[in-house]
Amino acid sequence: MRTTVGWRADAPATPLRRSPLERRDLRPDDLAVRVDYCGVCHSDLHAVAAHPGGTLVPGHEFTGVVTEAGPEVTGFAPGDPVAVGNIVDSCGECPMCRAGQENYCHAFPTLTYGGTDRHDGSTTLGGYSREYVVRDRFAYHLPAGLDPAGAAPLLCAGVTVWEPLRALGVGPGARVAVAGLGGLGHLAVKLAVALGAETTVISRSAGKADDARRLGAHDLLVSTDAARMAEARDRFDVVVDTIAADHDLGPYLRLVAMDGTLSQVGHLGPVTVRTTDLLIGRKRLGSAGSGGRPATAALLAFCAEHGITADIELLPSGQVNEAFDRLRRNDVRYRFVLDLSDLS
Amino acid sequence: MRTTVGWRADAPATPLRRSPLERRDLRPDDLAVRVDYCGVCHSDLHAVAAHPGGTLVPGHEFTGVVTEAGPEVTGFAPGDPVAVGNIVDSCGECPMCRAGQENYCHAFPTLTYGGTDRHDGSTTLGGYSREYVVRDRFAYHLPAGLDPAGAAPLLCAGVTVWEPLRALGVGPGARVAVAGLGGLGHLAVKLAVALGAETTVISRSAGKADDARRLGAHDLLVSTDAARMAEARDRFDVVVDTIAADHDLGPYLRLVAMDGTLSQVGHLGPVTVRTTDLLIGRKRLGSAGSGGRPATAALLAFCAEHGITADIELLPSGQVNEAFDRLRRNDVRYRFVLDLSDLS
Repeated sequence: MRTTVGWRADAPATPLRRSPLERRDLRPDDLAVRVDYCGVCHSDLHAVAAHPGGTLVPGHEFTGVVTEAGPEVTGFAPGDPVAVGNIVDSCGECPMCRAGQENYCHAFPTLTYGGTDRHDGSTTLGGYSREYVVRDRFAYHLPAGLDPAGAAPLLCAGVTVWEPLRALGVGPGARVAVAGLGGLGHLAVKLAVALGAETTVISRSAGKADDARRLGAHDLLVSTDAARMAEARDRFDVVVDTIAADHDLGPYLRLVAMDGTLSQVGHLGPVTVRTTDLLIGRKRLGSAGSGGRPATAALLAFCAEHGITADIELLPSGQVNEAFDRLRRNDVRYRFVLDLSDLS
Repeated sequence: MRTTVGWRADAPATPLRRSPLERRDLRPDDLAVRVDYCGVCHSDLHAVAAHPGGTLVPGHEFTGVVTEAGPEVTGFAPGDPVAVGNIVDSCGECPMCRAGQENYCHAFPTLTYGGTDRHDGSTTLGGYSREYVVRDRFAYHLPAGLDPAGAAPLLCAGVTVWEPLRALGVGPGARVAVAGLGGLGHLAVKLAVALGAETTVISRSAGKADDARRLGAHDLLVSTDAARMAEARDRFDVVVDTIAADHDLGPYLRLVAMDGTLSQVGHLGPVTVRTTDLLIGRKRLGSAGSGGRPATAALLAFCAEHGITADIELLPSGQVNEAFDRLRRNDVRYRFVLDLSDLS
C-alpha cells in the first residue's frame, strides 16, 4: 500500500480531521495523481452528515499532476496535468458503458469516494487528500491554459450542468433559464452563454443582477416577482434547476416552453409534481447526473476553448471545516476549492 | 333558448337521470348538432363523483350531424357529419391559441361540460344529450368512412394519446410502449402502430397478449414479470402511461431509453418521482392533455387514412348508469359509447 494524508470523517456531523490514509499499489492501468486542488461540492456536506461511520474522505472534483503510471498506461505520463471527477470506474460492458455513458452504468459506476472498488472491494476515499490512485480511463488531461484550481469544479459541478445542456440541444438561439446561482448555477450560466443561448438567471434575490450580468447572463428574473414570473410563462426551452433544496417545481415548470424541459440537477430527493403542471403546455421534467467519459472530455475542451473555469474561493485544505460551515449557509461565490499543498 | 333531453347528475355519486335541458339560441358562429354517439370517458366518472351540485351533464367526445348553422358559419352546413371533443372555445389571442394549441389556452379553454361559457357565463352541459350547440371553430368534419360510433372516442381518448405521440416524434423505427390497455391505451397502440413504431403493450396481465396482438402490438410486457421488466430496461423511446390510477412511476421510467420520455396521460393527480429515476439514464417525465384544433383535425384525417376507430361497446344511452358501474370495475373493451337516439 501507499500512504498519503487527507481529511477524513469518522462519524456523522463531526469535523473532518487530518489523517494518514492508505492508497492501493498501482495496478497496471492505474495512475497515481498528486492532488493539488479539490472542489467542495454540496454532496460532500450530505455525505458527511449521513455518514454511518468508518472512514469517509470526501472530494470528487479535483485536479493535479500524474506522479506515476502503471505499466499498461499509454495515455498519460508522470508530469501530466490531469483532472478526475466523481466516477472512477464502471463495468465497461453494459449498453450505457458501451455508449460512453459510464455515469449511468447498469452495474452502477464506482464513485470517487464512498464507492466500492470493483477489484478489491475496498471503499473508495476521495480527493480531500494529497494523493489519489485512479484507473487511467477515468482521468482526463487538463487542457493547457485552464487554471487548475478553477478547473477542479468543472469535473462535478460543471459536467452536471453540461450534461443536460447538451442532451437538450442547447445552442445558438435556445432560451435557457438557470434557477439558483451557486456552484452548479454559475457554471450553467457560463456554459449556456458560451453555447450561444439567450440565458436568464432566476434567483430569489434582485441583488444577484450584477453577478448574473458579469457571468454573461442576458437577464435576471426574480422568483418572488409574481408579475414578471407570469410574463415569463412558457418562455424557456430549457430550465436548469440547480436549487439544492426541496422546492415546489410548479413556478419553474410554468416558465418552460411547450415541449421544453425543466432539468432538476440540484436536489436529489423525491419530488412531487402536479401532473397539470406538466400537462398544461406539454412540458417535461428531467434530470441528469455527472457525465460519461466522452462528455467530460468534451466539456474540458469546450472550457479551454472558451476560457471557462469556476469562480472560486481558494482555501488551504486546513480550512475545510470552515468551508463546510460557510457552504451550509450558502456563503460562497461560487465554489470553494481546497488547496491540498498544505498536506505535503 | 332551445330545449333538448340529456342525462344529468344533480348531486355527487347519484345515478344520472334523464331530463330536459336547455341549449342556447344559435350565435352567428354556432352550430346546432344532433348528437348521435358519445363516448364514456374515465373523467366523466370523476366529474360525477366530485360534482358539487347544480346541473352536470357529462360527455366530451361525440359525433353527430349538423342540424342548423348560424349566419356567419361558412365551413359547415346542415347534414354535415361532425365531431366535437373536450374543448369548445378558447381566448383565441394568447400565444398558445395563436399556435393552434387551444387546449393550453393561457386563459383556459372552455370545457365541453362543466366549463364556463365565455359569452354568457353559463355552465356548459356535455354530450350525454341529444343536442349540443357549439362554436363552429370547435367542431370537426367527420371524415367519410369512419364509423361515427367508433370515431366518437377519438375526440378525447384518441387526441389525448395522439398529442404526446406526435409531440415526441413517434414515427417509423421508434420504440413505443403503452402502459395500460383501456380506452386511451388501446388507441395509443393502434396509433403508434400506424405511425410505424415498434409497439409494446405493458399490462399487469398476460391475458392481454391476444388483445395486444389483435390491436397490432409487436410485444406484450407483463409488468409483474420482474425478469422481463429488467431485460427491458432503457428500451423505449416513449412510454405512454395510460394507467388511470395513482401508481409508482419508477418501474415504467426504468424502461425509458436515455433522453426518452414517459408521458403520463391516464392519471391527473400529483405524482411523486424519485429524482434518481429520472437522473439515472437521463429520462424525462411529461404529460399532455387533449389537443388543439390542428392536431385534432390531423388525427381525424390520419384515422380515416388508416381505418382507425376505437373498439367500443355501444349501448343505448338509457344504460349510462350501467356503463358507469362497469367502467368503475374496468369492465369494458375498450370504450363505452352511448347511442343517443333513444332520447328522440
